[in-house]
Amino acid sequence: MMKFEGSHILSVSQFDRDAISRILEISSLMAPYAMRKKRCTVLDGAILNNLFFEPSTRTRVSFGAAFNLLGGFVRETVGEENSSLSKGESLFDTARVISGYSDVIAMRHPKMHSVEEFSKGSSVPVINGGDGANEHPTQALLDLFTIKSEMAPFNKNLDNLNITLMGDLKHGRTVHSLSKLLSLYKNVKVTMISPDALQMPDGVISTLTNAGHEVIQTDKIEGNLACDVIYQTRIQQERFASKDEADLYRGHFSLNKETYLQYCKENTVIMHPLPRDSRPDANELDNDLNDLDNLAIFRQAQNGVLVRMALFALTLGVENNLTKFEKPVTWHTAK
Amino acid sequence: MMKFEGSHILSVSQFDRDAISRILEISSLMAPYAMRKKRCTVLDGAILNNLFFEPSTRTRVSFGAAFNLLGGFVRETVGEENSSLSKGESLFDTARVISGYSDVIAMRHPKMHSVEEFSKGSSVPVINGGDGANEHPTQALLDLFTIKSEMAPFNKNLDNLNITLMGDLKHGRTVHSLSKLLSLYKNVKVTMISPDALQMPDGVISTLTNAGHEVIQTDKIEGNLACDVIYQTRIQQERFASKDEADLYRGHFSLNKETYLQYCKENTVIMHPLPRDSRPDANELDNDLNDLDNLAIFRQAQNGVLVRMALFALTLGVENNLTKFEKPVTWHTAK
Amino acid sequence: MMKFEGSHILSVSQFDRDAISRILEISSLMAPYAMRKKRCTVLDGAILNNLFFEPSTRTRVSFGAAFNLLGGFVRETVGEENSSLSKGESLFDTARVISGYSDVIAMRHPKMHSVEEFSKGSSVPVINGGDGANEHPTQALLDLFTIKSEMAPFNKNLDNLNITLMGDLKHGRTVHSLSKLLSLYKNVKVTMISPDALQMPDGVISTLTNAGHEVIQTDKIEGNLACDVIYQTRIQQERFASKDEADLYRGHFSLNKETYLQYCKENTVIMHPLPRDSRPDANELDNDLNDLDNLAIFRQAQNGVLVRMALFALTLGVENNLTKFEKPVTWHTAK
Repeated sequence: MMKFEGSHILSVSQFDRDAISRILEISSLMAPYAMRKKRCTVLDGAILNNLFFEPSTRTRVSFGAAFNLLGGFVRETVGEENSSLSKGESLFDTARVISGYSDVIAMRHPKMHSVEEFSKGSSVPVINGGDGANEHPTQALLDLFTIKSEMAPFNKNLDNLNITLMGDLKHGRTVHSLSKLLSLYKNVKVTMISPDALQMPDGVISTLTNAGHEVIQTDKIEGNLACDVIYQTRIQQERFASKDEADLYRGHFSLNKETYLQYCKENTVIMHPLPRDSRPDANELDNDLNDLDNLAIFRQAQNGVLVRMALFALTLGVENNLTKFEKPVTWHTAK
Repeated sequence: MMKFEGSHILSVSQFDRDAISRILEISSLMAPYAMRKKRCTVLDGAILNNLFFEPSTRTRVSFGAAFNLLGGFVRETVGEENSSLSKGESLFDTARVISGYSDVIAMRHPKMHSVEEFSKGSSVPVINGGDGANEHPTQALLDLFTIKSEMAPFNKNLDNLNITLMGDLKHGRTVHSLSKLLSLYKNVKVTMISPDALQMPDGVISTLTNAGHEVIQTDKIEGNLACDVIYQTRIQQERFASKDEADLYRGHFSLNKETYLQYCKENTVIMHPLPRDSRPDANELDNDLNDLDNLAIFRQAQNGVLVRMALFALTLGVENNLTKFEKPVTWHTAK
Repeated sequence: MMKFEGSHILSVSQFDRDAISRILEISSLMAPYAMRKKRCTVLDGAILNNLFFEPSTRTRVSFGAAFNLLGGFVRETVGEENSSLSKGESLFDTARVISGYSDVIAMRHPKMHSVEEFSKGSSVPVINGGDGANEHPTQALLDLFTIKSEMAPFNKNLDNLNITLMGDLKHGRTVHSLSKLLSLYKNVKVTMISPDALQMPDGVISTLTNAGHEVIQTDKIEGNLACDVIYQTRIQQERFASKDEADLYRGHFSLNKETYLQYCKENTVIMHPLPRDSRPDANELDNDLNDLDNLAIFRQAQNGVLVRMALFALTLGVENNLTKFEKPVTWHTAK
């Protein structure tokens, strides 16, 4: 199996089914710490450098909290303007220097493949927190973890899954990466609902069909939501030429309680990479779904912490020592 | 009495006199830790998310340092541009997600009542660090704590206080909140010195008069500074339509040593929420007051740490365990 | 000897040869912790306020990581816009307040002598992280530490050194400060290669000649690189009136492997304060030097952590207690 200790986490393509299985297994072990049943100090004294050259509250805070939950310190950089990159420094040089101040690095950058380029200069493991339109592997892993854990109560798992992907499938890197991961499993049915202009790229579709999966492409909701999981996405306005162009597609596939009750199965689970656009013209997932048990979007976000904790533990080689460093939680917690 | 554990701290209006008394009492217990006589690790491993959607060095750093002083980790977000809010996410969603990464949250936001809205989605206690022109409860509490501790050497307390509020009483939320808190005490005399256009809002005045307090409104310094406490404020330029309009009122009520010696009592204590505008055209409190023992402004700022430590301890239910987690300070300290 | 405990570190001029010697000695003790052979928690619970009113990823992260490596917490402020300074607060007031939330402060500010002004209000030690064109003492100290440790394998030391400074010697504060420090040693030969318009200021040259050192000024590489150490610098574009003016001098003294092999001695060590400008029109140090053992630039950056750890330890008076607080490193490390 893939060796995690000392490795970079750059792309979902680097994992086989066994490696994924190991990541999901370690992620499960993190639940009691994230839920504050107990705490773990296995990385007490270690330093994460959280380099966010592109803004992202959720992902940045999630990486940082994950490291704190294992007892480590976090140093943080937000926005390129604060960086030596603007003085002509190469990513290689930045990596050589910053990795000298770190035990592990999480990095987001607007340029495709920049994180891989950076990793070549780094003396410590680098975890890709999103490199432009290219990859966001921790999102794909937390999505897969969420599907697995949401299916478990129904005695289902990742094989034989029936999933619907909906919205901006052209620009949404989360649905691209998730599709790649699903190709590692058996007999998955993937229904893709999008406007014609925002269809899933051919390369992603071949990955799925080459794995023997059934793929349906459509622009209609009716008849296509009776699945195990609906994965709704956001119109990625920042990837369009203009707001006007993005507006053409906003709000086409809004989901609310009425639609849900009309078209979905009894236990169809709803996912979304968040943030969901709740403005009236978008309304990707209506607030009237908030009291629905099957709305998994906040559990999904929470799972991001578990997966990131697992990746820190695996790349730093401490995944078998967690219980040795357990301590009680001695403050109020309602989780 | 009010239950603090697990509660949000949103407004001074949520406290009765007993609750305030409890907060001030716990704040006092924090002094030895903040002064570095010893340290306390009761929140070792806990995570504060410090969300500052509006800039504020002092308040932000004070919240963060308060949490570190109790042993906890701090994750931080500064400025709205770094936030998913700009992608159409509701405050409710942001709260659901970020609270999943936190044990407690401190939040500042430019929009009135935004922190309360946010708190409805949070699974952990939220402490209001200022929501626009609305409330800044920790400032009001540290002001009250300061008055109490500054009066103690003179055998005075919050009942029977004689206080003068001075400057921009219209926009200064600190004097609004402080007035609300003073209405919980007995027989307070409040003199309000301001330009006519910047008078204290009627609602605040009724709160005081309904409590049986004497209120005097004036635009003259002479004869109105012979009090126990002068609370000077800053012209809140950011709340005016333009800098020009703010400039109309800047510098009207400057206080310097000469004025102080001429109009104040021997032990009149000077307070200010800081930052004081020290530019020549404002000069709210002249630097020649800096060597005056009764200039309490820096002790007041320091008290902010005590009060915030107390609120963290109370909302996380550890206020009775502080001494169990004491440790010696083993480095240089001159405090 | 100079007393470090409780002192500010503002300028290299405050040190004599014994004080420097002490700093370099303590810096050496930090290597095992920075290299992760073991860790040290001597500042567990202490708080650094890292105030960067001017952007700097490298220096900021290095200060923060240095403090974490000794076990302490870091609070951070980046950019003046987030500061009360913009509301007219004096540096003195800011210092009085922030030092109340800190055990030690590291500060960078674009204005000359601002850090010294700030330090007058601070109740805790302040370390200058760069105040505009004035000083950057920790850079000069890490440069000196690097020269000393790079020379050691060749049985050389700081006395009798033969060093070449190259590039923008007019604006580069690092070469100014380094020259001041070199004047504490004996019989140093300093060759200065720069365009006529970017020559070393007269005051710096007198400091060296007053110390009895040989100084050569030239605008030619040929014949002037057969030294122990080449210290290459960046064209400080931000100190020129315009980019166009800076462009006049960019790329004049590029060093690559061919130049190195042609003009240098066998063991000439290459240094650079970083970031190096790797854009083709600048190419200060060509990437083809990266596999050269004598390219010391990344060790130099790493040494910044050691020197900053030493200054924290010395100013907080814990430099003799390091071994008492040692712990094993229990995670993956390749350093």
